[in-house]
Amino acid sequence: MTEHTENDSPVRGRRRDVGRDRVLLEATLEVLYEKGYGGLTTAEVAKRAGVSTATLYRRWSSKQDLVIGTATQWARDLGRGEDTGTLDGDLTALLRDKARTLDGPGGRLLHVLIGEAAHNPALARVLDDAVVQPVRDRAAALVARAVERGDIPPLEDTHVLADLVVGAMVSRVFLTPGPSSPSPTGEAMVRELRPFLLRALGARPA
Amino acid sequence: MTEHTENDSPVRGRRRDVGRDRVLLEATLEVLYEKGYGGLTTAEVAKRAGVSTATLYRRWSSKQDLVIGTATQWARDLGRGEDTGTLDGDLTALLRDKARTLDGPGGRLLHVLIGEAAHNPALARVLDDAVVQPVRDRAAALVARAVERGDIPPLEDTHVLADLVVGAMVSRVFLTPGPSSPSPTGEAMVRELRPFLLRALGARPA
Repeated sequence: MTEHTENDSPVRGRRRDVGRDRVLLEATLEVLYEKGYGGLTTAEVAKRAGVSTATLYRRWSSKQDLVIGTATQWARDLGRGEDTGTLDGDLTALLRDKARTLDGPGGRLLHVLIGEAAHNPALARVLDDAVVQPVRDRAAALVARAVERGDIPPLEDTHVLADLVVGAMVSRVFLTPGPSSPSPTGEAMVRELRPFLLRALGARPA
Repeated sequence: MTEHTENDSPVRGRRRDVGRDRVLLEATLEVLYEKGYGGLTTAEVAKRAGVSTATLYRRWSSKQDLVIGTATQWARDLGRGEDTGTLDGDLTALLRDKARTLDGPGGRLLHVLIGEAAHNPALARVLDDAVVQPVRDRAAALVARAVERGDIPPLEDTHVLADLVVGAMVSRVFLTPGPSSPSPTGEAMVRELRPFLLRALGARPA
């Protein structure tokens, strides 16, 4: 491993850019979590990432662009979800994948962005596209497979499952914890939610 | 109606203070929604409320104190919930009351505060105490009555219903809406969530 130094020569190529993108992403998450969106400055992010602000601005044209880019890169983490052959298997996999994206830096990012989205329509769109829509698509697909197999009757609304999955996790991770009530681990959340959601979908008791 | 003027004479008494508190609360909500927590200044709130910053600081010692006070005043809105005699009645009343607190200024306040709470433990505690705990208490009480009546079997966890109610609404109101998907009205949310939650609680189909 060689030390990173400030050098923008194009011959360094893509490998070096990916490394710098990752360092900028992590610095952005760190500053967002400590200071919120309002307290974040591109100068602070550049400093922590060990790059010049000129370098940062070559990649991201503004603070909002930097934060949206960070959110979009992170949100690629949620998998598409294989067909496990059972409703329980598909639902548990969705809950596990979602719990994993909410644990750690991605969850902290989402936490900060939800608040900022209240008065920032561009961020609100990113949150919808990057965070809720993938869960909605995956939930609709697993429900359709379960109905097709005859495991459950058709549902009144196909999007309610996504709201229940995302919402319950957001509620547990972002609203419930305080100094006296540590955030539950992802696996504990999955275990708690699973029987409620299976019943909500109309699955017969095991 | 007389015009409000700047006058801090103590002989004006409680009635006048309540009016001023309400004006400050509304100004705080307005500025929070437009500019976020990071962009809010006590000077701007005082200006919109038509009071001096000295007046504001006599009531609230800091920006954080002002915002926490606003959140706490607003959160008193959620009712305690009467015993309607049925699980469906109790649940529908809880959903309606909660939807009402998330509609309008209170919901905008919560939206901004969720993000700020990510790096502000005092606000995180207020959100837990003022927003989630009342729903948790009311959900636990309605579940206990339903189990007592023999309407549903005992549940694995009593707090999951509160997470599902708060979470699904937060997800619909704060995460889903964008320019192309307007936030559903409270009554539409209640109607959509009701059958899923009744099944999740183990209620027999009507």
